[in-house]
Amino acid sequence: MTLLEKVRAGKIPVEVRHVAADERVDPEVLARNIALGHAVVPANRCRKAKRFLGIGKGLRTKVNANIGTSRDYPRVAKELAKLDAAVKAGADAVMDLSTGGDIRAIRRAVVKHSPIAVGSVSIYDAAVAAVAGVGKNILAMTPDSMLAAFRAHAEDGIDFITVHAGVTRDVLADLAAHPRVCGMVSRGGTFLAEWMKHHKAENPYYERFDELLDIAREFDVTLSLGDGLRPGAIADANDPAQLHELRTLAGLARRALAKGVQSMIEGPGHVPLHLVAEHVRYQKKVCHGAPFYVLGPLVTDIAPGYDHITSAIGGAVAAAAGADFLCYVTPSEHLSLPSVEEVHTGVIAARIAAHAGDIAKGLPHAADWDRTFSQRRRKRDWKKLLSDCIDPAAAKRIRLKGKPADSDVCSMCGEYCVFRLQDELD
Amino acid sequence: MTLLEKVRAGKIPVEVRHVAADERVDPEVLARNIALGHAVVPANRCRKAKRFLGIGKGLRTKVNANIGTSRDYPRVAKELAKLDAAVKAGADAVMDLSTGGDIRAIRRAVVKHSPIAVGSVSIYDAAVAAVAGVGKNILAMTPDSMLAAFRAHAEDGIDFITVHAGVTRDVLADLAAHPRVCGMVSRGGTFLAEWMKHHKAENPYYERFDELLDIAREFDVTLSLGDGLRPGAIADANDPAQLHELRTLAGLARRALAKGVQSMIEGPGHVPLHLVAEHVRYQKKVCHGAPFYVLGPLVTDIAPGYDHITSAIGGAVAAAAGADFLCYVTPSEHLSLPSVEEVHTGVIAARIAAHAGDIAKGLPHAADWDRTFSQRRRKRDWKKLLSDCIDPAAAKRIRLKGKPADSDVCSMCGEYCVFRLQDELD
Repeated sequence: MTLLEKVRAGKIPVEVRHVAADERVDPEVLARNIALGHAVVPANRCRKAKRFLGIGKGLRTKVNANIGTSRDYPRVAKELAKLDAAVKAGADAVMDLSTGGDIRAIRRAVVKHSPIAVGSVSIYDAAVAAVAGVGKNILAMTPDSMLAAFRAHAEDGIDFITVHAGVTRDVLADLAAHPRVCGMVSRGGTFLAEWMKHHKAENPYYERFDELLDIAREFDVTLSLGDGLRPGAIADANDPAQLHELRTLAGLARRALAKGVQSMIEGPGHVPLHLVAEHVRYQKKVCHGAPFYVLGPLVTDIAPGYDHITSAIGGAVAAAAGADFLCYVTPSEHLSLPSVEEVHTGVIAARIAAHAGDIAKGLPHAADWDRTFSQRRRKRDWKKLLSDCIDPAAAKRIRLKGKPADSDVCSMCGEYCVFRLQDELD
Repeated sequence: MTLLEKVRAGKIPVEVRHVAADERVDPEVLARNIALGHAVVPANRCRKAKRFLGIGKGLRTKVNANIGTSRDYPRVAKELAKLDAAVKAGADAVMDLSTGGDIRAIRRAVVKHSPIAVGSVSIYDAAVAAVAGVGKNILAMTPDSMLAAFRAHAEDGIDFITVHAGVTRDVLADLAAHPRVCGMVSRGGTFLAEWMKHHKAENPYYERFDELLDIAREFDVTLSLGDGLRPGAIADANDPAQLHELRTLAGLARRALAKGVQSMIEGPGHVPLHLVAEHVRYQKKVCHGAPFYVLGPLVTDIAPGYDHITSAIGGAVAAAAGADFLCYVTPSEHLSLPSVEEVHTGVIAARIAAHAGDIAKGLPHAADWDRTFSQRRRKRDWKKLLSDCIDPAAAKRIRLKGKPADSDVCSMCGEYCVFRLQDELD
């Protein structure tokens, strides 16, 4: 039985108990939300995970860090260092998006090393194999190679796998009818779209979705229903193709649920600030409350180098409106593969967004951290204050750089510290 | 005549023409908004400014950078370097908040060097003089020394001066009746509150507001009506004392308007995300549409070292809801006086928030930058793309660090660049 089948049979699997305890929620309520498709606990059957990840209704907003090699940076050691940095910075999951080097060996190494849930995008294997093969082109992928890639990821212990099953011929017709500034920007979605156009064929992940579900069921893999049509420019947000794909994903999520397979829905992307909450509410409605996993959203296109900030803005607003899972964006997004340090920065920025969203959502206990923290700030309890920050090392570095003459104030206000004044004069 | 009196007499002063041209708005509409108190163009009569700053209805959301010495960092050269960094990063105004060294000399140097509008907080002069005098304590300030400090700032050419005239005895009674986690965190507000409590006296800036207006009128200084009660912890947001002060400031703004003196209202502070837009709308309603100048808002307390991000989240949402002027927050906020580099980072983060807010507000032309930018991204026109970023140097640094093997893609996707694939295969 899959985890979903167990909760539907009235059982409360150990993974669900773990998550419920971590989050201080009632395990029966969490189990019911999973049974309804409103929450997921991705846990591949083949993997001995140490920690479990819950995503969805009533749970803390989670953060994913993308890692993985590219042609220019194929070294596995570097990606494992990024994995460590992401875990240390507090990421809840990592996705291995490797496309350079021996990507299966890298994926297995990531799964082996990761104490947190691992996701991936299975079509990359089919594409990389096609490019390495005699065809030397992604167009040499076949429906069988795409399905085989999915199975390979499942066998390797991946907990949640992105499949762009919603990039259908009908959706692409909508895209053609309503041209975009930036076309498609999802890598997996683009591989499929180009393949479909060339071969004049339907999306194999869509056409053979039942087979996909059988494999997912066998390994208890959670589907992350990818948004191949996510906007890559704010001008393209919430356009007909994107919303058509979203409605398609909603139907696929229902089919997964019926077959005992957990799933979540992936979302944008570049979205102007005034459309972020609206889009999240639309997703929740159309997708019957399925967990929503967003990449950003980035609220402006013009800030490469700072897209951890543009996405923290959109991510916080998305989380406040109901998004459940934020994929981080690093300062190097749109410019280069991130460094270890940029992975760290990206995770912290996304955690800030998730936390701000949880407070706004009214999640019980979310604001407790802030209250305790501010009580310590008022008392100028610097030692506890610094160790309780979201990034203690960074805060300590900045405070020490400032070298205040008095140890109980900071170098910004010095003797005019409002807290000290109030303590001395009140 | 003051600028406000001129527009009320049906004239369109040169400063207003400049701002209207910069912002591509009708000068008559802008003049009417200034006459109604819905916009300001701060321009001290004693200063030969090179550029003019418009804040308020129908205008781009502006960004202020705080600079200034403290006891631990009293060097003027360092602050002038920060001024240069802020201007280069695109700040619209700077505030000199110096409290260390010869603060009048520093202020004059800042006014002399700055090509952009300059603001300040006049009570710091009275406080620093009191601490340096025989009393050796801020309690040795007098109503006359506070008024004299305001006049000194006006004489020095400051374009907008913060006065915490809303920290009244009634407001402090509300604070006492509703205790906070972090009490008062405004420096100027705390000086006044402690002085008032000790001397059992009303706030001189409130009691002698007409005299203040006479000085402001003489030099055509714009008042920035300070929020001494701004919350310093999200738990304290929108509490009775804060809202009481805001209503008091609304009344003072009306008195300023009647006397031909421009004013804007200062706002928070630490505010949880779900209360940010609500607070901005409340300010706009209560204050009859007066320009709103916010510090942040910071949507969580727990991220010292990253408060440029927590405040970019709140600032973007505030701007989208109608806030007109964002005071930047640097990564060193709450920890130390910012470095030159942190000033740069703070300005960029606030500009991102302001721009995202302008797009959401539906400000005409705001999204043009994004559209053009994304069209270039689609074409992989790297040269123009990089030079058109909000921070070209930072973007170039990250791209070059990545050293892609191909010059027309980046090291993240390499040969799997979606734009190149679409160009080659479509």
